Amino acid sequence: MSPSPAPVAHLVSVGTCLPGEPVDNATLAKLVGVDEQWAEMFIGNVSRHFAVDLATGQVRHSLADIAATAADRALAAAGLEAVDIDCVVMGTATPDQLMPATVNLVADRLGIDNVPTYQLQSGCAGAVQALDVARTLLLAGRCSTVLVIGGDVCAKHLETDFDPGSRTPGELVNYILFGDGAGAAVLSAESFGERVEIRQVLNRLVGLGKAPGQVIDWFGLGDRHSDRIAVSEDYKAIEAAVPVLATQMFWELIGDVGWTADQVDYLLPPQLSGRMSDRISDAMPAPLAQRVNVVRTVGNNGNALPFLQLAELLGQWQGGGRAVTVAVESSKWIKSGIALERA
Amino acid sequence: MSPSPAPVAHLVSVGTCLPGEPVDNATLAKLVGVDEQWAEMFIGNVSRHFAVDLATGQVRHSLADIAATAADRALAAAGLEAVDIDCVVMGTATPDQLMPATVNLVADRLGIDNVPTYQLQSGCAGAVQALDVARTLLLAGRCSTVLVIGGDVCAKHLETDFDPGSRTPGELVNYILFGDGAGAAVLSAESFGERVEIRQVLNRLVGLGKAPGQVIDWFGLGDRHSDRIAVSEDYKAIEAAVPVLATQMFWELIGDVGWTADQVDYLLPPQLSGRMSDRISDAMPAPLAQRVNVVRTVGNNGNALPFLQLAELLGQWQGGGRAVTVAVESSKWIKSGIALERA
Repeated sequence: MSPSPAPVAHLVSVGTCLPGEPVDNATLAKLVGVDEQWAEMFIGNVSRHFAVDLATGQVRHSLADIAATAADRALAAAGLEAVDIDCVVMGTATPDQLMPATVNLVADRLGIDNVPTYQLQSGCAGAVQALDVARTLLLAGRCSTVLVIGGDVCAKHLETDFDPGSRTPGELVNYILFGDGAGAAVLSAESFGERVEIRQVLNRLVGLGKAPGQVIDWFGLGDRHSDRIAVSEDYKAIEAAVPVLATQMFWELIGDVGWTADQVDYLLPPQLSGRMSDRISDAMPAPLAQRVNVVRTVGNNGNALPFLQLAELLGQWQGGGRAVTVAVESSKWIKSGIALERA
Repeated sequence: MSPSPAPVAHLVSVGTCLPGEPVDNATLAKLVGVDEQWAEMFIGNVSRHFAVDLATGQVRHSLADIAATAADRALAAAGLEAVDIDCVVMGTATPDQLMPATVNLVADRLGIDNVPTYQLQSGCAGAVQALDVARTLLLAGRCSTVLVIGGDVCAKHLETDFDPGSRTPGELVNYILFGDGAGAAVLSAESFGERVEIRQVLNRLVGLGKAPGQVIDWFGLGDRHSDRIAVSEDYKAIEAAVPVLATQMFWELIGDVGWTADQVDYLLPPQLSGRMSDRISDAMPAPLAQRVNVVRTVGNNGNALPFLQLAELLGQWQGGGRAVTVAVESSKWIKSGIALERA
């Protein structure tokens, strides 16, 4: 008996969802007191989407809402229905509730039942972690068609009841940088749809002894009136570490699959601010690769971003080729990435 | 070339950690206004551990603290060091923060670095989900030695600043039912330590169209002063569904591995209240199996419970035999379980 061929994971389709209309810098200037010119010049983001209406404070979309829409679109693009999915994996830093996990509410909306579900608690690297777990389930022969979802909604942490001019630049910068969104992908042991092979997924914690670069806390019933700081970033540390970790991950990925840097046709680099992402993008190896950046228009929407980049990639990608995506999470420092190939 | 044997996942060791001294019903009666006799008679729990000092409101232990201690103990019992671990998987419903994921803070305390880490957002079934992901990583050949952690700390949701007598029985019951704790296990592709083979792990969402049985919400900066209800349970629905789902999972597990009910030597049933768990335990199949219940003394500490049951099991288990553990999560209804065998 000859051994059967090793299983392979394929990317079949991608779907995305951005809540409501884009919020531009002029609107942020009016509602929040952001300096429009400064936002454009020093951050480089021109728009983002929010699940909450900044003008009224009304929450219009939950994470489950936009994740279910993105997943619906991924299923439709794959030509699949709920009953074809035998596992759901989701990544988010901002679940709607602690329990039930949002992945299970999304499954319910889609009509998916009686399958394993997993929700990974993670920041920017979470989408890659979710794709990693999904691919591993396929490689182990545990599943054959996995729905992968990533998304974040910062509605609970957004304060909308303040006067323009009352906040420091350090507080205002988060309104320019962040945004909400969701994405989804269908992965399968069979090659169909987009027919992209997922050659490798890597995901590594590399923060030993380092202070976190980003902290997002939550409040409970018992401690919610405390004056604890809930959200903080060390932008200097992030600016220093991300380019280094991204380049390391790029070399690790192409080394693993046996590619040279000039064989990479598309590069999906980490997405910080529009300005930083362009700089990291330009400095990364892969001399011939087309860069796929989306953060300028959608903001940093965490676990949604890699799916938005993949959707943009698939729109450009005709015929065969090779793509590398890299995501860095500055929380406790995680470097992650994916190597994709189409014959 | 003959095919190499299919990889197998082994349970090598288990470690646990319960914060502080046990809090008995007499103490709860004094501090919180619980009726001691009612707690004993109708709930059946005699003690539990809390990461927070109920008398002062002081938080003495984080989830990262007790999870790191449990993990340390599991590593020591396996005779392993941080450098031997090539992946960490954690399950919790109550992470210390949203970012960094607590698993990464635990890894940092243990000196684990440059490996993949995953944190599953989940309730009672989370420990099984974490063992499931770990086993899948081993079966796919992605890892060889995985540290699995589960734990919960309800400190943020515990209100300690109220007068005894001011709360309804519905609010007080949670002080009797719940508790804090952590557990950990080492899984390996090699058989050593406890030499228990993990024959099967199942984990299925089965809540299509059903209302959640348990909801635990979180507050952000923007919405923390709202009067939103953050914690709620439907105990009638839980009492009705858990015995049915537990028995289904038992039959699925033993059917998958080809055992009959009377071949099961140890049964680790779902852990609700002490009284309910005894009732479910007695009514479950497996006529000859020794029941392993721990909730009476430790309370429902979520993702820690299955590890505490496994530790209790390993203390009793001499020589060969078969064990089945079942966990049911009442959030959006998840049934899960593990089949274990020692030659």
